[in-house]
Amino acid sequence: MSSMFGTFLRVSLFGQSHGDAIGIILDGFPAGMRIDQKRLQAEMARRRPGQSNMTTQRREEDLPEFLSGVLEGRTTGQPICAVIRNHDMHSGDYGDGVDVIRPAHADYTGHIRYFGWEDWRGGGSFSGRLTAPIVAAGALCAQFLEEQGIRIESHISRIGSISDRSFADFGDDTDFSFLKEMAIPTLSEEAGKAMQQEILNASAEQDSVGGAVECQVRGLPAGLGSPFFDSVESVLSHLYFAIPAVKGVEFGSGFALAGMRGTEANDPFRISDGKVVTITNHAGGINGGITNGMPVVCRIAVRPTPSIGREQHSVSLKRMKNETLQIHGRHDPCILPRITPVVEAMTAIGILDLWKERGACLSSSPIQAQ
Amino acid sequence: MSSMFGTFLRVSLFGQSHGDAIGIILDGFPAGMRIDQKRLQAEMARRRPGQSNMTTQRREEDLPEFLSGVLEGRTTGQPICAVIRNHDMHSGDYGDGVDVIRPAHADYTGHIRYFGWEDWRGGGSFSGRLTAPIVAAGALCAQFLEEQGIRIESHISRIGSISDRSFADFGDDTDFSFLKEMAIPTLSEEAGKAMQQEILNASAEQDSVGGAVECQVRGLPAGLGSPFFDSVESVLSHLYFAIPAVKGVEFGSGFALAGMRGTEANDPFRISDGKVVTITNHAGGINGGITNGMPVVCRIAVRPTPSIGREQHSVSLKRMKNETLQIHGRHDPCILPRITPVVEAMTAIGILDLWKERGACLSSSPIQAQ
Amino acid sequence: MSSMFGTFLRVSLFGQSHGDAIGIILDGFPAGMRIDQKRLQAEMARRRPGQSNMTTQRREEDLPEFLSGVLEGRTTGQPICAVIRNHDMHSGDYGDGVDVIRPAHADYTGHIRYFGWEDWRGGGSFSGRLTAPIVAAGALCAQFLEEQGIRIESHISRIGSISDRSFADFGDDTDFSFLKEMAIPTLSEEAGKAMQQEILNASAEQDSVGGAVECQVRGLPAGLGSPFFDSVESVLSHLYFAIPAVKGVEFGSGFALAGMRGTEANDPFRISDGKVVTITNHAGGINGGITNGMPVVCRIAVRPTPSIGREQHSVSLKRMKNETLQIHGRHDPCILPRITPVVEAMTAIGILDLWKERGACLSSSPIQAQ
Amino acid sequence: MSSMFGTFLRVSLFGQSHGDAIGIILDGFPAGMRIDQKRLQAEMARRRPGQSNMTTQRREEDLPEFLSGVLEGRTTGQPICAVIRNHDMHSGDYGDGVDVIRPAHADYTGHIRYFGWEDWRGGGSFSGRLTAPIVAAGALCAQFLEEQGIRIESHISRIGSISDRSFADFGDDTDFSFLKEMAIPTLSEEAGKAMQQEILNASAEQDSVGGAVECQVRGLPAGLGSPFFDSVESVLSHLYFAIPAVKGVEFGSGFALAGMRGTEANDPFRISDGKVVTITNHAGGINGGITNGMPVVCRIAVRPTPSIGREQHSVSLKRMKNETLQIHGRHDPCILPRITPVVEAMTAIGILDLWKERGACLSSSPIQAQ
Repeated sequence: MSSMFGTFLRVSLFGQSHGDAIGIILDGFPAGMRIDQKRLQAEMARRRPGQSNMTTQRREEDLPEFLSGVLEGRTTGQPICAVIRNHDMHSGDYGDGVDVIRPAHADYTGHIRYFGWEDWRGGGSFSGRLTAPIVAAGALCAQFLEEQGIRIESHISRIGSISDRSFADFGDDTDFSFLKEMAIPTLSEEAGKAMQQEILNASAEQDSVGGAVECQVRGLPAGLGSPFFDSVESVLSHLYFAIPAVKGVEFGSGFALAGMRGTEANDPFRISDGKVVTITNHAGGINGGITNGMPVVCRIAVRPTPSIGREQHSVSLKRMKNETLQIHGRHDPCILPRITPVVEAMTAIGILDLWKERGACLSSSPIQAQ
Repeated sequence: MSSMFGTFLRVSLFGQSHGDAIGIILDGFPAGMRIDQKRLQAEMARRRPGQSNMTTQRREEDLPEFLSGVLEGRTTGQPICAVIRNHDMHSGDYGDGVDVIRPAHADYTGHIRYFGWEDWRGGGSFSGRLTAPIVAAGALCAQFLEEQGIRIESHISRIGSISDRSFADFGDDTDFSFLKEMAIPTLSEEAGKAMQQEILNASAEQDSVGGAVECQVRGLPAGLGSPFFDSVESVLSHLYFAIPAVKGVEFGSGFALAGMRGTEANDPFRISDGKVVTITNHAGGINGGITNGMPVVCRIAVRPTPSIGREQHSVSLKRMKNETLQIHGRHDPCILPRITPVVEAMTAIGILDLWKERGACLSSSPIQAQ
Repeated sequence: MSSMFGTFLRVSLFGQSHGDAIGIILDGFPAGMRIDQKRLQAEMARRRPGQSNMTTQRREEDLPEFLSGVLEGRTTGQPICAVIRNHDMHSGDYGDGVDVIRPAHADYTGHIRYFGWEDWRGGGSFSGRLTAPIVAAGALCAQFLEEQGIRIESHISRIGSISDRSFADFGDDTDFSFLKEMAIPTLSEEAGKAMQQEILNASAEQDSVGGAVECQVRGLPAGLGSPFFDSVESVLSHLYFAIPAVKGVEFGSGFALAGMRGTEANDPFRISDGKVVTITNHAGGINGGITNGMPVVCRIAVRPTPSIGREQHSVSLKRMKNETLQIHGRHDPCILPRITPVVEAMTAIGILDLWKERGACLSSSPIQAQ
Repeated sequence: MSSMFGTFLRVSLFGQSHGDAIGIILDGFPAGMRIDQKRLQAEMARRRPGQSNMTTQRREEDLPEFLSGVLEGRTTGQPICAVIRNHDMHSGDYGDGVDVIRPAHADYTGHIRYFGWEDWRGGGSFSGRLTAPIVAAGALCAQFLEEQGIRIESHISRIGSISDRSFADFGDDTDFSFLKEMAIPTLSEEAGKAMQQEILNASAEQDSVGGAVECQVRGLPAGLGSPFFDSVESVLSHLYFAIPAVKGVEFGSGFALAGMRGTEANDPFRISDGKVVTITNHAGGINGGITNGMPVVCRIAVRPTPSIGREQHSVSLKRMKNETLQIHGRHDPCILPRITPVVEAMTAIGILDLWKERGACLSSSPIQAQ
């Protein structure tokens, strides 16, 4: 199925870019949480376009309306349906039906997948716009997790040729909340400025540029996840790769582990303040698919925005002939500045699913061996 | 859930490394396929240990016994249960209960996850041994897909500092079947030899070494997969990250896309022999989560084997004190030579699930628009 | 999970009786079907209250708005979200929070289930009003199935002491389409009149009355469903028991089989027009969980409406004391006249799920043995 | 899928009647439970054939072997695989391939479903023999639930024309453990004797006879289950209808509610010992799909055994002609004496799934409103 995910917490996504509305159902969300509206709006604002010259000029208020599952500002435990209306649609920008397919877009694959019946307007089901309800759902999950002491943070670790510093360069107790306030969330101010220039350069050349996000989850208890098909990595990567434009996911030292020796990669355990910790964290907080209590750390590779102003080679589906294509209309030269809240939202959804599974185990196996 | 996966084709995995047997159920497998026993045994042999001085000396015949779902050598359409007996177990090697936890293993996380009741012997549920039934299930899926013209191939793209060439360096019609015959399957003979030396070096130093696998699927029709939660990338990465030791997954140009411009990354379409193809394949055959008919290409990062002969720092769970640890017993200095059939098996399972979903759509939406 | 169901076709239900809106997502619906709006509205009208003196006077237009998955009147293959706004709410009727719990309602169990945070207004998630989006989703499924030659029909087989005739009393080719036009759909006109009187009698005594529905599916191919957990009976009963007030489900001769001998209950096979048929249909068209090509027939028991005007014994949750309770406001003395479209909708949803599964098998196992 | 069920606790069933072995995987079972082998064997013995002149003479030891998930007699929390070998098979009894199909069996539907490739020997996947691993899995679940104070009990409420008394005729604290010791478990000794005669009569006439089971669950907390698709009735009926030969399921007063008024059917609440209880239990302990703390009560209708010695009318699939058929070999004239442990096992599996879901909610929504 395309639009549903989860076991203990389930999401069900719907909507097309230029339909009347988009939205999401969140089933299994805990009852009794007072929704922090400011926090929710701040998350929505981070993802929203039209905020600077680096993002598309489409303007959407993007405030989710809760059709169900919320009473007097609190979650009721019943399915939450959050709907976001589409207002500022310029379907005219996209031409008359799918014909000359845009490279790296889903025009062609969607046409095959839905036998030509798909809502192709503005990218239809494939649009990055669908990430708005995901951010709404994720914001609720993240708020709940925060109330349990679990924090999810991310920054842009790379755009084009510019790399940021890493979370690992900072102390365990560093407060990274400043990241949520930044248009280009980076750990190094310089890197942020260079990235901004990288984006403007790409934009000036009617081009786009890719990048990567580093995300971490702190405050997790050990014991979340399972070996094999519900490893923490399996669940989170499933969600990350559901984000349009994501093409790579790695945990801990990830691909760098391919070049390491075991002596370097094995994170030694030690006792610290009566707790088991590891000295290094090449495993990204996950051993055998299960959290070990250290921060869960991952990096997500994001391809350059497919929509570029330059003329491209393509084909006409209607005439089955080679063609050239010029894309008009609004589009981001780089989606990295807007993708961090989406990555955090997906993380929150996945972690809350695993957290509930853990809760079920805790309540059914209360006795500890030995 | 830890041990089940899939929608149209479902697998259900069970067993511990040193229990009586391990196995897998495969539900939803097509009826009427004559199982190619030679092919199946060849796949099992590729994964089996004890074949050279580069792999653990544990000897297992690893021939799956089909308890159900197979009649007179043909699949019946009913659930297939494949069981593999454990014979050559040396539990004594692993000591007396979980106490001093092995770095980078799941000793600690499994202990927390299962409240101290887990079968810890030989790694229990976390053992790489559990990949044997996965290879058996995957071999059936791969045979079925081959009969539909879909081929899955992989090679070791990296071990330590040594890199192999890439599938993309060869022509579209290259026959890569030789890879299945090689102890160290590489595209470049030289790279293979250098990798062998890299492993022997690590082994000589009582150390281990990591690497990466490149896998491709050729012959896929366009239209498999869905946007968002059942993107091809989501389904396959879910399965790959279920393989012990996998820490990174990327599709197409993956993390390299982070440094690219759109003009470079966008794969231009063209018509070739009346079919829509792309000139480059940075997207790894997937646009918007859906196959576009080009080869699906991915790379999987594999950490160094956690078990190394050198003394390591760790803690005793029983006394909650820092300790040192020396691991004895058999273990691979590098699991790359044995992991390629597992990667292919997971690929085959995921692709067949998506292929059946496509079949359901094809049979319910026969009319093409326009 | 409370609100999602299905494997190949999935529904996801949301909304509370007195929230802003209720709705449903339908994922996996075939692409390219032109929605018959008249047919859809007719189905909605059959379920709608306020149509006679036998049903509640709440007036709702109940026209579903498709927020996604429909383009220019055709399904796109993408998730369909149908939303129905709530307009005519009298929350005042229901008092100030859950205190004195209504017998046979979910006031108490919902209070426990959701820890006191539930949206209790108008029955909240438990309201029969939630069946409106189910009817909308079912109407689409039923239209699709009809286009494949599969018809779903139902009538009220019993209200209180009055029983209707049975589908089995009529010839195989009888046209039962008249049932959809009737306020009290019965096969015998007399029974219908007597049932109407039975309802009016109950209403006059500020009481309510129960009944049963008989539903059949004709035109099904043999081979839908599976042994054990996805038997046709398992899937359909799962859906029927999701309808509020349903307390019994039987297939074929159902409970009467408990009193039969095998010689009577075994439906003999014979060849008719080159097809395998059965002479009797005590099995309700299902052998071993799989359709045999005969009509699938079932009966669903519906309890009397819990809301009655008479004073009842109950307890105050707030004071944990025995109390009496008088329910005011609108309510149906008998929900049977409105439940038949809901039963048909659930049937259509379940059958289409099984039909898609069959499609996946047909497309992957094309060769017939022998 | 045919062979898997559950959300938080999942079962995965495999095997054919005359294959090498049958079995089940139980995933999500709590860790640390010491398996009561005697209790398990007693449950297996209740279902086992060959114990009297009223059941088939096939002799199977039916002791499940745990291939995984159990260490030193305790569950480990990892997937449990229980396998039962088939020994006493007389495939010759069943003839040479599916040709003349047995009425009321799945010979025909299985043939269509699996395209002629099915393992038809001894009923293949459809055999009642598959209930043996279900009883094994259920016995573990029931033991766990008992340790939480939850008891599951059943008796034969009807065979042919003979009815037993009902659980409701006895006091709340009645000890019904004697039922597990009886060959024909009834509440009334007389009824049991009359049932025995009913079976012998049917047997003497080479015929079979149907019946019904009443099952109850005591000690359940209020709050299990959910409205709509995961109602307690939906989950349990799904499981009951997976049992071969089950054709009807009703909860509480079930079909009798069709003839009742609301004044009679509404169970009044009252406070007893500081707890909310109901005076009557027409709802079978379930309001709005959720347990209310009263016993969950249901009745399951079981058709007469399809296998009878008398000559029957049928057709030859190979020649597509009408034929007569005489079934030889062993078969039960009535499966009721052996079906009660299966009903209890399915109940235990379903209740433990719901119980774990409740655990996840309890651990994530600890605060009670008001």
